Amino acid sequence: MNHRMISNDFLIPIQDRLLRVEEVMRSQADAHHSDLASALHLLLASGGKRIRPAVALLTGEMLGGNPESLVILASAIELLHTATLVHDDLIDGSFLRRGNATLNAQWSPGATVLTGDFIFAQAARLASETNSITVMHLFAETLATIVNGEITQMFSGHGLVNHQEYEQRIYAKTASLFETAARSAAILSSVDESVVEKLRVYGYSIGMAFQIVDDILDFTGEQATIGKPVASDLRQGLMTLPAIYYWEIHSDDRDLQSIVDGNKIAEPEMNRLIFNIRNSGSIEKALEQAGDYIDKSLHVLMDFPDTPEHRSLENLAHYIIDRKI
Amino acid sequence: MNHRMISNDFLIPIQDRLLRVEEVMRSQADAHHSDLASALHLLLASGGKRIRPAVALLTGEMLGGNPESLVILASAIELLHTATLVHDDLIDGSFLRRGNATLNAQWSPGATVLTGDFIFAQAARLASETNSITVMHLFAETLATIVNGEITQMFSGHGLVNHQEYEQRIYAKTASLFETAARSAAILSSVDESVVEKLRVYGYSIGMAFQIVDDILDFTGEQATIGKPVASDLRQGLMTLPAIYYWEIHSDDRDLQSIVDGNKIAEPEMNRLIFNIRNSGSIEKALEQAGDYIDKSLHVLMDFPDTPEHRSLENLAHYIIDRKI
Repeated sequence: MNHRMISNDFLIPIQDRLLRVEEVMRSQADAHHSDLASALHLLLASGGKRIRPAVALLTGEMLGGNPESLVILASAIELLHTATLVHDDLIDGSFLRRGNATLNAQWSPGATVLTGDFIFAQAARLASETNSITVMHLFAETLATIVNGEITQMFSGHGLVNHQEYEQRIYAKTASLFETAARSAAILSSVDESVVEKLRVYGYSIGMAFQIVDDILDFTGEQATIGKPVASDLRQGLMTLPAIYYWEIHSDDRDLQSIVDGNKIAEPEMNRLIFNIRNSGSIEKALEQAGDYIDKSLHVLMDFPDTPEHRSLENLAHYIIDRKI
Repeated sequence: MNHRMISNDFLIPIQDRLLRVEEVMRSQADAHHSDLASALHLLLASGGKRIRPAVALLTGEMLGGNPESLVILASAIELLHTATLVHDDLIDGSFLRRGNATLNAQWSPGATVLTGDFIFAQAARLASETNSITVMHLFAETLATIVNGEITQMFSGHGLVNHQEYEQRIYAKTASLFETAARSAAILSSVDESVVEKLRVYGYSIGMAFQIVDDILDFTGEQATIGKPVASDLRQGLMTLPAIYYWEIHSDDRDLQSIVDGNKIAEPEMNRLIFNIRNSGSIEKALEQAGDYIDKSLHVLMDFPDTPEHRSLENLAHYIIDRKI
């Protein structure tokens, strides 16, 4: 596919609804303890591109779905995402996300666990307000998939070098929620099962590409820009796609062998390894795989009429692969 | 009301369905990581009286609901309860529950958080399998209520001496889920709104009584029987009903004043205070209040025909107040 440098203009058709999503999300703690409200506002203020809600809104509006139902769905999707981040940051002991202090940097572990639980509850409540049992079911399944993925990663640990396992991992971590965003929006728009399936594939494909690009940026980004050390996954013994491709060709690399064996390596060796991976062609191969997913997502869109929402979904797909953090 | 010493014979009409509930709960991790399955089995094997599933099953079957739907609901209710316990034990740093090692005594905090999340997800999935949007909604609301209650308790801390706040706390902690168990079972049995409301009151009332009795047992039980130090709440600065009644009459008690002020007191003073509370008539007053709730629960049952399930719901109410741990 061709790369085009684009902005996030794809949000223009849904600007008003994205503001409503912010309102709906922020209001979820209104009737509850004030510290909970502060925590939620803090989490939401720290940003994020709201790309998952955008997928839900654009998909549903392209199909003629009810905008207010879609706002509820989009808010539920982003809150589910937010809740998983709260627990992840606690588990990883991360004190910064997107350059902002995480909740666990400021709150006790107990308060952080409970805040995550509360946000899960509100995400589930909003999902139930879509009045679709199928959407509710997908929500619960997606949460189970995400959590099962994290547990699998936690217990499998280092040395994972297999494409199939990598794909399962990024599906659980990222693509499952993108898939649910697009699929649920289609379900709420009361379209045929075959149309729902096409949009499911769209969500799945851009989600897979999104995580591969994240994993690439972990190698190619600068620490100051990505807000964490370069190759942070590899430093934790986690093999992502660039490292997997590199390992297929350089199985004699002793630095990477150490990591695959579950050992730590010193900083000079780590820097050498990062340099070698960056210059091995593995990044390009990984980018090509992300491009294949994006092509797949654009392919399913071809069956739909040309509307502003349709063009935005195309641009969103392009944005995912072209984005710079 | 009269106290009668009774056994848990009230489970007899639903024995088969309670076994199905165990099966359904145990199977929730089957398609997932094996360590997750082990953790779930460990949690479920450590017991609990399954009193919440019993409320759901007996209520629904009394009203002629579909037994298989009720099994799904009952499993969802008990899993929601189990998930909250997993996170609670982690937050409190408790290593024993009902005499068994807690999950966090054996697992890392991260794995424990994720296991709780996974069980929440499966509870939500099962709730969605009841095919009732209202039940789904109640589930999510109940989780929010429980978590908001815990956060309120965490941030309010010691010195809570007000009946209203106590009632809000035990509603959030315990009665909300009993209420949802009975109410959801009634909803699934497609009865009139007025009948649903009666059963809601039944669930609410036995739930309130259940927690008051727990709070009494915390003072009157022996450490060996209740599996934790006597007056464990008071030791954490938490005022429960017996202490609140005592404080109303003995506001000059310097030991309790220290606790209300947020200070720790030494063991001899603590033992003196426990002795004083036990012998002040406050336990009896608290028991009377629990009895009033039980009377309320029996009162709403009077509107229903005499069936084995009806008698079991009566006996369950009696059991709650008569139970010894």
